[in-house]
Amino acid sequence: MIPEEDVKVAIIGGGAGGMAAASRIKRLRPDWRVDVFEKTSYVSHAPCGIPFYLSGMVESISELCAYDVNFFREKRGINVHLNSEVVKVEDGRVEVLERGKVQEYEWDRLVFATGAKAKRLNVRCMELDGVLCVSGIERAPIIREIASKYDNIVIIGSGYIGVEVADALSRKKRITVIEQESHPMPGYDHEISDILLGEMRQRVNLRLGERVLEISGSGRVEKVVTSADEYRADLVILAIGVEPNVKLALEYGIEMGQSGAIKTNEYMETSKNGVYAVGDCAETTNIITGKPDWIPLAAPANKMGYVAGSNIAGIRMKFPGAMKSQITSFYDLEIGKAGLSEKEAVRHGYDAVSVTITTRSRAKYIPGEGNITLKMVADAKTHRVLGVQAIGKGVSKRIYGASALLYKKATVEDFFFADFPFYPPKSPVWDPLVLAARNMFRKLGIS
Amino acid sequence: MIPEEDVKVAIIGGGAGGMAAASRIKRLRPDWRVDVFEKTSYVSHAPCGIPFYLSGMVESISELCAYDVNFFREKRGINVHLNSEVVKVEDGRVEVLERGKVQEYEWDRLVFATGAKAKRLNVRCMELDGVLCVSGIERAPIIREIASKYDNIVIIGSGYIGVEVADALSRKKRITVIEQESHPMPGYDHEISDILLGEMRQRVNLRLGERVLEISGSGRVEKVVTSADEYRADLVILAIGVEPNVKLALEYGIEMGQSGAIKTNEYMETSKNGVYAVGDCAETTNIITGKPDWIPLAAPANKMGYVAGSNIAGIRMKFPGAMKSQITSFYDLEIGKAGLSEKEAVRHGYDAVSVTITTRSRAKYIPGEGNITLKMVADAKTHRVLGVQAIGKGVSKRIYGASALLYKKATVEDFFFADFPFYPPKSPVWDPLVLAARNMFRKLGIS
Repeated sequence: MIPEEDVKVAIIGGGAGGMAAASRIKRLRPDWRVDVFEKTSYVSHAPCGIPFYLSGMVESISELCAYDVNFFREKRGINVHLNSEVVKVEDGRVEVLERGKVQEYEWDRLVFATGAKAKRLNVRCMELDGVLCVSGIERAPIIREIASKYDNIVIIGSGYIGVEVADALSRKKRITVIEQESHPMPGYDHEISDILLGEMRQRVNLRLGERVLEISGSGRVEKVVTSADEYRADLVILAIGVEPNVKLALEYGIEMGQSGAIKTNEYMETSKNGVYAVGDCAETTNIITGKPDWIPLAAPANKMGYVAGSNIAGIRMKFPGAMKSQITSFYDLEIGKAGLSEKEAVRHGYDAVSVTITTRSRAKYIPGEGNITLKMVADAKTHRVLGVQAIGKGVSKRIYGASALLYKKATVEDFFFADFPFYPPKSPVWDPLVLAARNMFRKLGIS
Repeated sequence: MIPEEDVKVAIIGGGAGGMAAASRIKRLRPDWRVDVFEKTSYVSHAPCGIPFYLSGMVESISELCAYDVNFFREKRGINVHLNSEVVKVEDGRVEVLERGKVQEYEWDRLVFATGAKAKRLNVRCMELDGVLCVSGIERAPIIREIASKYDNIVIIGSGYIGVEVADALSRKKRITVIEQESHPMPGYDHEISDILLGEMRQRVNLRLGERVLEISGSGRVEKVVTSADEYRADLVILAIGVEPNVKLALEYGIEMGQSGAIKTNEYMETSKNGVYAVGDCAETTNIITGKPDWIPLAAPANKMGYVAGSNIAGIRMKFPGAMKSQITSFYDLEIGKAGLSEKEAVRHGYDAVSVTITTRSRAKYIPGEGNITLKMVADAKTHRVLGVQAIGKGVSKRIYGASALLYKKATVEDFFFADFPFYPPKSPVWDPLVLAARNMFRKLGIS
């Protein structure tokens, strides 16, 4: 099963997944030629860091890149082509627009790591100055520049990115956040997002249940018109989600999954022999449901790259999927989720039961604010836990614990008996995860 | 299988395990009579909170009790007898020294929840004033009182309690810590305890590899003499560990386990019919090794009480054991462990391999100190992870994640693929647990 010598690998996209694949291949097969074609002038870029750049916590945009391009070129021997756009893919060759002209490169193995792109709003006047997306890191300096000069900032969308950007900018500016759903963070159930809603109302002008109809201005943006009202805007930040960037793969005839991302198997192989897909452009398996899912997050992207790279280099390895484990925060509230919300569980056909508790995140005799609200969702038939969401203090460690147990398809009994550490300043003797499981026993009629 | 009506339950000891059992029984069988005999004047006391009382973070000793005795009496209907010492156990009856005279109580089910007691040093002059143990909470006010008046405090032992008390008192006082091993926290491997050692040297007079030979003075303590030197002492705090409190059970003829604690099965039943043991006096199963072990910690004690209570009340439930998951801290260092250290793994006969990494606990572009050193120990044959230890920043969440995976007998591959959340201010895209697993792949020859 050892592949032939002198294999040429082409990787389209130099983000997390692409660079992880390239690095893995060069480690296992130092003599192979690995070309990475990256449209922007950054590699290994971390769009998840943009909110911290916008807040000023991170000074320079270049710090958001895990490594400099020279690291990949010199230390790892990868041929990184910056500002190079692949314009055509054919069997065994790609055409690349590089320094003003089209170059041709041959490949024996190909990796699509083309990432995701920000969704656009289907409204008029999107082309005005001052209307920007938080997706690639290239535009982030422009957002920071405009945000520093003007006062009226409108953020459209209140998913993770919208909330993080609102946090980052609202410390100095008047922020309006527009969300078409009834609650911020629509991926969460209301027991959790109600608490976020309360905090956001104190920090920003939060407009819920409003649909954006128009973004208008002459030359540059002046206002955002919604189904309910209109808002002055010197800067509009679009954060309504992303979609997989699959144009090239489609043109090449690669099969797509139900999610609209590139269909892959456990080895990260696509429908064509020798062609792989990783990261935000690739579909994978949802570990909870066992069904195909699109999970555009950085940590799984890196692992997909690692797995694809291993397989390309001749070490068979399976990627088991992901489950959208996430943590974020808004001011003093930590917010996190692993697995499914109750509404997602119902949508997937589970006989879902849930428990929501509000309790101390640490021993009650330790002074200071320390509440956490935690919701656990389980399947009534199998007692398997399907998801955990939490908001308040000490959320990270519970989402770590929950992610680990969910990964191992744990039941409510497992959540009760898993031996989490007790340390008064950090955790109470009955951990919130254990308390939730204990309450779930009653719901399930176990005791 | 429903037990008869009018069952009388006697519980010896009102700590975490005893009160958890009592509460559980009364919830399921409100009509049963449940007597709890507690030697001290506190119930549901939390000795783990003593260091935070000594530091002054917790003002009053009564705050360390999870609940007041009236809560248990009035809300839960438990007959709690304070200052009541069981002096004799016989089939169906106990004799209790209560308010100066011996009373007799009948029982149909009996629970030993007699806890642990501080180990004593086998040296002369233990009976001097100013020589105290950190075990029961009753003595804690005396320690705080003496510590506030005098300057020279010697702590003997540097396990969790010794380290936490040293942290609590060294902010205002000159502290000497004497440890007979070469490193503080002997339960940890040196890759971890070396870092703690460096920090402790800056905060206290840390004396390693010294055996205490004598504690001397006239009337009250004046000095501690060790194998290497002698130290002035106005207060000596003994923190050399605990041992199970099993005198009554032994006298009654209950079988002990190899650990010296009361032997129990999965239902927390002892060798005598209708007699249970829970908490620090009971032996249980080590989830990692599968062997009997003595794990005197508060979180498992509560769960043992819950399980024994369930079984007594007629709901069959198994206690799977524990694994000594723990977190503590010393100044800015968080320290934690789940499962076995490498030396423990070797002692148990595993073909142990280990990886130690020092990496960022969060995204590298987030400013501030953020290193974590993490050691993973695995079995070379099965790839099963046997333990994780960590020190530095962001330790809790990794010990939560590790505890959960270890509970499910996870392999190195599971640690690599478990989908931990990525959030730049809290965790890097390659989590330390995942990085350690990736390095372990190489050690194990997986890739």
